[in-house]
Amino acid sequence: MDRTLVRDARHKIGSRILLYGWVHRIRDLGNLTFLLLRDRSGLIQVVLEGKDRPALRLETVVRIEGAVVPNDQVQGRVEIHATKVEVVSDVEYDHLPLAVNAGVIKEGLDTILNHRVLSLRNPKVHGIFLVQQEIIRAFRDFFRAQGFTEIQTPKIVAEGAEGGAELFPVKYFKKRAYLAQSPQFYKQMMVAAGYERVFEVGHAYRAELHNTNRHLNEYISLDVEMGFIQDEHDLMAIENEFLRYLFSTLPETCGEELACYGVELADPGAIPKLSVGEAQALLKKEYGKILPPGSIDAEAEKLLGRYVKEKTGSDFLFLTGFPVSKRPVYAMPMEDDPNLTKSFDLLYKGLEITTGGQRIHSYRMLHDKMLAFGLNPEDFGFYLDTFKYGVPPHGGFAIGCERLTMQLLNLANVREASLFPRDLDRVTP
Amino acid sequence: MDRTLVRDARHKIGSRILLYGWVHRIRDLGNLTFLLLRDRSGLIQVVLEGKDRPALRLETVVRIEGAVVPNDQVQGRVEIHATKVEVVSDVEYDHLPLAVNAGVIKEGLDTILNHRVLSLRNPKVHGIFLVQQEIIRAFRDFFRAQGFTEIQTPKIVAEGAEGGAELFPVKYFKKRAYLAQSPQFYKQMMVAAGYERVFEVGHAYRAELHNTNRHLNEYISLDVEMGFIQDEHDLMAIENEFLRYLFSTLPETCGEELACYGVELADPGAIPKLSVGEAQALLKKEYGKILPPGSIDAEAEKLLGRYVKEKTGSDFLFLTGFPVSKRPVYAMPMEDDPNLTKSFDLLYKGLEITTGGQRIHSYRMLHDKMLAFGLNPEDFGFYLDTFKYGVPPHGGFAIGCERLTMQLLNLANVREASLFPRDLDRVTP
Repeated sequence: MDRTLVRDARHKIGSRILLYGWVHRIRDLGNLTFLLLRDRSGLIQVVLEGKDRPALRLETVVRIEGAVVPNDQVQGRVEIHATKVEVVSDVEYDHLPLAVNAGVIKEGLDTILNHRVLSLRNPKVHGIFLVQQEIIRAFRDFFRAQGFTEIQTPKIVAEGAEGGAELFPVKYFKKRAYLAQSPQFYKQMMVAAGYERVFEVGHAYRAELHNTNRHLNEYISLDVEMGFIQDEHDLMAIENEFLRYLFSTLPETCGEELACYGVELADPGAIPKLSVGEAQALLKKEYGKILPPGSIDAEAEKLLGRYVKEKTGSDFLFLTGFPVSKRPVYAMPMEDDPNLTKSFDLLYKGLEITTGGQRIHSYRMLHDKMLAFGLNPEDFGFYLDTFKYGVPPHGGFAIGCERLTMQLLNLANVREASLFPRDLDRVTP
Repeated sequence: MDRTLVRDARHKIGSRILLYGWVHRIRDLGNLTFLLLRDRSGLIQVVLEGKDRPALRLETVVRIEGAVVPNDQVQGRVEIHATKVEVVSDVEYDHLPLAVNAGVIKEGLDTILNHRVLSLRNPKVHGIFLVQQEIIRAFRDFFRAQGFTEIQTPKIVAEGAEGGAELFPVKYFKKRAYLAQSPQFYKQMMVAAGYERVFEVGHAYRAELHNTNRHLNEYISLDVEMGFIQDEHDLMAIENEFLRYLFSTLPETCGEELACYGVELADPGAIPKLSVGEAQALLKKEYGKILPPGSIDAEAEKLLGRYVKEKTGSDFLFLTGFPVSKRPVYAMPMEDDPNLTKSFDLLYKGLEITTGGQRIHSYRMLHDKMLAFGLNPEDFGFYLDTFKYGVPPHGGFAIGCERLTMQLLNLANVREASLFPRDLDRVTP
């Protein structure tokens, strides 16, 4: 007999079927036992008559044969009247460190992450990563349809792309190397290599000492880079279109999981834009908040998110025109104000989920900019040399996948949106 | 005027169009100049009349307006009679380190890899990574359709999964960590976490000192893991089905690129299987080759590949039943011969492209096996603990993406199938 998945049982009323899964809940009434069986597709009630059944504990893996019987009182409107129950794989614990079968796991985040295999079995937690995979799938589908080629670039690199000391060193044979902070250099080089439009779903590494609810030291970066652009507004336009596509497709691909988190997605429409200068003026006027020139801190992001939501109804806001001093060396300066760059951030519900912008494509300009930044052009040989060989105007952006997932599902901590998060204290599990 | 891609010009005969791209070739006949323009979609001939044109060098990025005119003598059967040519982005080189416009780049592999942005512009090289992306896409599409969930697991890990000392150490704040040799522990844990069937496209790291034509120190691993299997033959069956799907879909998605490499893909059919014991007997009988018990070396792989091709016509061969001593601690032993494991390799044209097998799912068996292997179970705490909480029979395999690409396109060196390969000597570009 072939296995039936739990979600397909309701199409087989009257038949005898074979189920596999985990024991999610047990209610023993003596001559009658009710099991809730869990497989990757859902939960189903199993009724066992008589006392002749194997000793079952929560999370035991079982094989169940039985008849599908309608029952309007239970989830899914069918239950299984079991004729045979066998243990496939037993358990060896004294007690479960967390309640897999709770509606919401009550244990703290540390317990949830320490016992990740168990917390992921909880149906609500399970759903987070189904949604995340659909986000990633939508990202790939959208950009492929726009003529982008997917790439995989190296994560062992000789230099950091984003400046700063926030690099993890790797002992690479007799050399010292680093983990890539971003695929920045490589995605630009792939545009320059004639692929013109590229995207990547890959890990990025930041050795940041931040221990907040929104920082991960290893995260999934959804990267985009495209050539032959007019300016950074082309980039914001395509990210805006992607988000509209995402929000239209997720209800189809994971509507149940969104509902489980009480999320209803509305078309983001045309995302409003504010320059950093305008945003600072607004923060001062509305909230009396004064920031150093060019800076938007985490509290300011929250205030701006709230303000824009109230005024326009939008959950999103593009911040534009960051000063040169706040952006990496490769950021393209504005023609009419060389102290500002053609760059942007995207806030979602008051949290930065994207940084992007147009890049410098002139060898001479990039070379001189490195000197102005106090960098040695020779340290960036292969990257800088690229621009000797004809590179079109280009730019791109990156979306933090876990942050997008977190904001979309209104999770309290970005670690909840990472299968096995890496932070200051955590390299296991 | 909107940009037209080169490949779409033939649908616009008689129209005036706008093209962007790189100068691939120049033939200057005084009053008449022939350019070959290259964009991401292909090559097209551009005819310029008169001497009034900007100074153009190879690889200059240009903007061209002109009329689409039929010409049966050229590739694509149309050419552009240019009315306007502008330089979008200039070049600054003394001489090109390699001939981008050669049919086959004549410079050696080191030059090709040192100047990767230029070698990737070569249309034939460009095609390798279009094929590779279609392999990856087909992998995802196939396994998703089979009910698998895509996962992204951490590459910064506390312990190696595959044993041995071939790990790259990472300085992780005050701790020592490593780059993951494979997602082995994590993909098993995701099966155990109730996702049951998972796949991953991610980097894997091997600090191997091999400097051969088939080793990379950072590579793309196409990983699969599935629960509720009967034995390792279920795994070989699904990999076989994937390869049949792949070979049927690639001619549709990248037929031109395959043709450029002279590759015609035939249905792999049912892939033959040989046990390691049978393979060793055959090698001895046919080639007088004697190997240590359980070993199949690189030369043996080639001989077996050739033998099976001659006898059955198959480019593929499953090798089964590797001894315990040749497999990691997590390999499931055979019931009828505990010195052998339920494991397999897949050879493609005489090169191993896959290792797989059923895993141990019993806590007690795995614990005792660790002791027998001289490992300390406490070092594998979070992995080993997983098996206390009910784990179904499961197994999986991994396909080396660059090796599959290399063998499929008959490339001489696996580095050709990596955008920016990492090897003993190479961390740049």
